[in-house]
Amino acid sequence: MTVEEVKSIIRTVSDFPKEGILFRDLTTAFNNPECLHWFGERLFEYYKDLGVTKVLGVESRGFIVAPIVADKLGAGFVPVRKKGKLPADVITESYEKEYGVDTIEIHKDALSENDVVMIHDDLLATGGTMLAAINLVKKFNVKKIYISFLVELDVLNGRQTLGGGVDVYSLVHY
Amino acid sequence: MTVEEVKSIIRTVSDFPKEGILFRDLTTAFNNPECLHWFGERLFEYYKDLGVTKVLGVESRGFIVAPIVADKLGAGFVPVRKKGKLPADVITESYEKEYGVDTIEIHKDALSENDVVMIHDDLLATGGTMLAAINLVKKFNVKKIYISFLVELDVLNGRQTLGGGVDVYSLVHY
Repeated sequence: MTVEEVKSIIRTVSDFPKEGILFRDLTTAFNNPECLHWFGERLFEYYKDLGVTKVLGVESRGFIVAPIVADKLGAGFVPVRKKGKLPADVITESYEKEYGVDTIEIHKDALSENDVVMIHDDLLATGGTMLAAINLVKKFNVKKIYISFLVELDVLNGRQTLGGGVDVYSLVHY
Repeated sequence: MTVEEVKSIIRTVSDFPKEGILFRDLTTAFNNPECLHWFGERLFEYYKDLGVTKVLGVESRGFIVAPIVADKLGAGFVPVRKKGKLPADVITESYEKEYGVDTIEIHKDALSENDVVMIHDDLLATGGTMLAAINLVKKFNVKKIYISFLVELDVLNGRQTLGGGVDVYSLVHY
């Protein structure tokens, strides 16, 4: 499967979630067995020799491919969730969104200093949520942080927001 | 890995999300590579010869293991989401919860009459959400519906709520 074939399967929806936005809808790609498999395999190929011990998925679209990659790598899967969803003790990080402040959380005992972490989300737009996730994971003093996306919207410069020292890998670019 | 070993890894949290509830926290099991792998393999073994074409995950904890199973089965993954999260045309189903009414949705073009569907969620409690998911999927006139959970709380009789004609498979029982 080629990137162009995958792009032909990803649906573009106009004016969602609000007017003027071209939304890249990955559900059509998850619903395609070859495409779902391609996402997992391509990420596995990139990370397989990097010693990743924990794959983190950002709620909730990041939950879909991250566990597939965790399972292929023999790593654990850790959810990065919105405030109040995790039942045990958490470490939190708040960040500004267009309207107000959001908070994300990770269980306090989910990561340790020996972990090599790959944080995954489905799509990189402006990068605000992923930057918060990186700052949250840094509080655990892990050995190394890698970042992956299925889709990156190059024109929004999210990669710049994430900072120069971060290893960012995206499968499909628009 | 045995069911008893998996149970020893699942964390029990008291009084979450409210007083008096013993919450079965699967995040500790997802974070354990052997346990995550066991979930996917055990479900794959059960469904591998049943012709499943689509695996549905119920937002958002059902998103974690459902895509792993879909990938192993060579099936597509379809998210069952809360109202307003899916960008294209949807079919909806509303159901009563303890406080008020909830609505779940599936993209209108995500399923067809030729599909054999397995709907997955992490945990069967009273079964209200899964019953709504079953009723929603029935609107697509699919060939057959299977149901799976990682954990079933037997004492809450959710299986009875789902109805007698439904094939329900749960890996761990409390």
